Amino acid sequence: MKNYINLSDIEDLPELLEDALKLKEHNSDPELGKGKTLGMLFFNPSLRTRLSTEKAAKLLGMEVMVMNVNSDGWALEFEDGVVMDSNKAEHIKEGAAVLSQYCDIIAVRAFPELKDKDKDNAEMVMNGFKEYASVPILNLESATGHPLQALTDALTILELKQVKRPKVVLTWAPHPRALPHAVPNSFVEMMQKMDVDFTITHPVGYELNSDVTKDTPIIHDQEEALKDADFVYVKNWSSYEHYGDVLRADNAWTFNLEKLQHTNNARVMHCLPVRRNIVIADEVLDSDNSVVIHQANNRTFAAQAVLKKLLKN
Amino acid sequence: MKNYINLSDIEDLPELLEDALKLKEHNSDPELGKGKTLGMLFFNPSLRTRLSTEKAAKLLGMEVMVMNVNSDGWALEFEDGVVMDSNKAEHIKEGAAVLSQYCDIIAVRAFPELKDKDKDNAEMVMNGFKEYASVPILNLESATGHPLQALTDALTILELKQVKRPKVVLTWAPHPRALPHAVPNSFVEMMQKMDVDFTITHPVGYELNSDVTKDTPIIHDQEEALKDADFVYVKNWSSYEHYGDVLRADNAWTFNLEKLQHTNNARVMHCLPVRRNIVIADEVLDSDNSVVIHQANNRTFAAQAVLKKLLKN
Amino acid sequence: MKNYINLSDIEDLPELLEDALKLKEHNSDPELGKGKTLGMLFFNPSLRTRLSTEKAAKLLGMEVMVMNVNSDGWALEFEDGVVMDSNKAEHIKEGAAVLSQYCDIIAVRAFPELKDKDKDNAEMVMNGFKEYASVPILNLESATGHPLQALTDALTILELKQVKRPKVVLTWAPHPRALPHAVPNSFVEMMQKMDVDFTITHPVGYELNSDVTKDTPIIHDQEEALKDADFVYVKNWSSYEHYGDVLRADNAWTFNLEKLQHTNNARVMHCLPVRRNIVIADEVLDSDNSVVIHQANNRTFAAQAVLKKLLKN
Repeated sequence: MKNYINLSDIEDLPELLEDALKLKEHNSDPELGKGKTLGMLFFNPSLRTRLSTEKAAKLLGMEVMVMNVNSDGWALEFEDGVVMDSNKAEHIKEGAAVLSQYCDIIAVRAFPELKDKDKDNAEMVMNGFKEYASVPILNLESATGHPLQALTDALTILELKQVKRPKVVLTWAPHPRALPHAVPNSFVEMMQKMDVDFTITHPVGYELNSDVTKDTPIIHDQEEALKDADFVYVKNWSSYEHYGDVLRADNAWTFNLEKLQHTNNARVMHCLPVRRNIVIADEVLDSDNSVVIHQANNRTFAAQAVLKKLLKN
Repeated sequence: MKNYINLSDIEDLPELLEDALKLKEHNSDPELGKGKTLGMLFFNPSLRTRLSTEKAAKLLGMEVMVMNVNSDGWALEFEDGVVMDSNKAEHIKEGAAVLSQYCDIIAVRAFPELKDKDKDNAEMVMNGFKEYASVPILNLESATGHPLQALTDALTILELKQVKRPKVVLTWAPHPRALPHAVPNSFVEMMQKMDVDFTITHPVGYELNSDVTKDTPIIHDQEEALKDADFVYVKNWSSYEHYGDVLRADNAWTFNLEKLQHTNNARVMHCLPVRRNIVIADEVLDSDNSVVIHQANNRTFAAQAVLKKLLKN
Repeated sequence: MKNYINLSDIEDLPELLEDALKLKEHNSDPELGKGKTLGMLFFNPSLRTRLSTEKAAKLLGMEVMVMNVNSDGWALEFEDGVVMDSNKAEHIKEGAAVLSQYCDIIAVRAFPELKDKDKDNAEMVMNGFKEYASVPILNLESATGHPLQALTDALTILELKQVKRPKVVLTWAPHPRALPHAVPNSFVEMMQKMDVDFTITHPVGYELNSDVTKDTPIIHDQEEALKDADFVYVKNWSSYEHYGDVLRADNAWTFNLEKLQHTNNARVMHCLPVRRNIVIADEVLDSDNSVVIHQANNRTFAAQAVLKKLLKN
């Protein structure tokens, strides 16, 4: 594996998932990363991604250096050919090349601004690092994808499924703020790669990028979609068509006990952080159906499996 | 030891102090924490607590992950049953449970707001972590207590005392800002557990919580209280009755050479940081009577002894 | 070596440079720093200095603790004898003494304010740490010097020179903001110690401190100065005489391909971050003549050689 920026960077998904499960049982490679350094760059806040990836690297014996780019270092310029007279002191050409001197893998988190669809889709930050770094790049959530989360999600479904081909439903839920499409995008792409019966449900107007959803069934009747679901992934995202807009504020789509009762006693998943009683009701999060903590724990082993692949490259 | 949140979590104080002294002489357990991770969460600034606890953990072979919660991660909601439509993106229920997946011990610093006495006394943050984490919690200073500092203070007195039962005086001193009661509370509770002749002195109006001071003698005449003292602990705190108020701005209680002369050539202690020439005069801090740096050094070994107990649990 | 604050702290430059080159080839002392702790204190942002020094310490087996002083800890007071009623909660006397309890080496970055020449020249922060710490101090760039950068620069010239005594030119370049004199000062001092033909060129009004430049030739005609240069070090600095002022905004001194053609196919150096198309043109930075990334890589080995000396002291 050269980088882990998109799910398409995975060469053999079943093998990667199997390795993550094995690492969860037993940390078989505590010395693989000895003398190697992971540099973690945050343009945005992070709890799970930050700590699970740092932990995964240390489980492999790596050193970890963490930087909050905007406050600790210099604002980065990504435009090519520009006269650098703005507040951005360093160009990605130097930034990425220099970091490649100190780090064996560079991990980057950079959210979208949700104002200009084309700009966000261009993935300027992640692609800038990919182009100008000379070491592997690890995506810690970019403008349009969160492949470490999706690998965690696949791992969780693989571990907990009770039938060979479970029914998995991704359901939109409300949220007071405009959220990115990175998590749902990567989840959709991951489900398309797995042997699951996969459906997306959301209110009209919340269609995801059709280049991502492709021919995955989309049902606008949440109750109908949830019927017989073995896994329900609850997640908010802002409108993609009316880019970045929050189209509705009501709680009709909040995932509560009544919604759960339409399912086949489904396991309820969420990437976290989750706004209680808006996205998912207390009664569901505090029930045995919720696997969100189990899922968060799997972040470590998904990251560890990917870091192993990048180190072995 | 299950947690170290309050001094009441100590099962055997003499044994814990003895172990801290032994660790100071010789780092006997450099591998005890191997493969274990300490997560340190800061809601407020820290110098000594941060660095001494990080160092203590590494002396035990632990990995350490540090987060400034408010800037690095997501604002936490602590209220139960709330509809999470504020600026707080993550509930302590998930936050603590998730951190427990990545950390073997969670250390937390969270100061009081000093506006609402009942709210501060409820210790919402520390108790939230205690309730929802599945790993031991280490208090790095909470709204009402600073037990790591108190253990350091006990260690310092134990090391430096020249009589079996020294006279120890806690004296209030002025400060331009409203400070919490955490340090004096824990010092008072610690002295009550030790074989010392302990007195508190402060101006009228600066009474600490009587549930803490219990039957410890309180003398409002500073000169009388200081007479024959072997140790003087100088510390400011804001009013507890007029909660969070600074009642006086004069420097009559500043601890200077004249005050020192009332004592039995006392050792002068302070938790630091100390405002020079307001809390304690230069002439005292720069004299041989000051043991504040010795005391700060003991932070490492107090923390190491506590971490050992938590790891062995 | 007792400290590494100024270039005058170097006892034997050729030996130090040789050791840095050896460490680059082979990490010969991975255990020298075992059980030792480097504390890194940042009053200002840093990318290269931060990560290369952290990496260098870890290559020696040291533990590293990083603090952004202003946000993580307490604002420090450096004035002696002051009544501490300002927003500064901790005096350098305690700050440095306490850090010396937890760290075996203290590294400090503190930029000048560029408002008061005498104040900046007094190097209050660095000298405060030197005076009150009981462990070695490592300068990560101070008000008037950046000796780790200068050692890197010397290493780079030593590695890349093709004649015994190369011609080295330090040329001023424009910049939208007022920048410190630390990098040019230390570079000038380092070149004065080396067997090179060294010239400084800058517009009238941009004279550096004459106590630093001494009898180094200064030529105001950039083209003439660049003639036959083997190495060109491009760097902006604000006026020293009109202290901290930006005297001109035009790009006549921008280092571009035309300027390069006056040289002997010179290697182009810069400490980074560099403002493209203001300080140096894309066409030069993207050419084979630029060695800025090679130079940034050498930061690690310069820092490692210095840390070795400080550890062995």
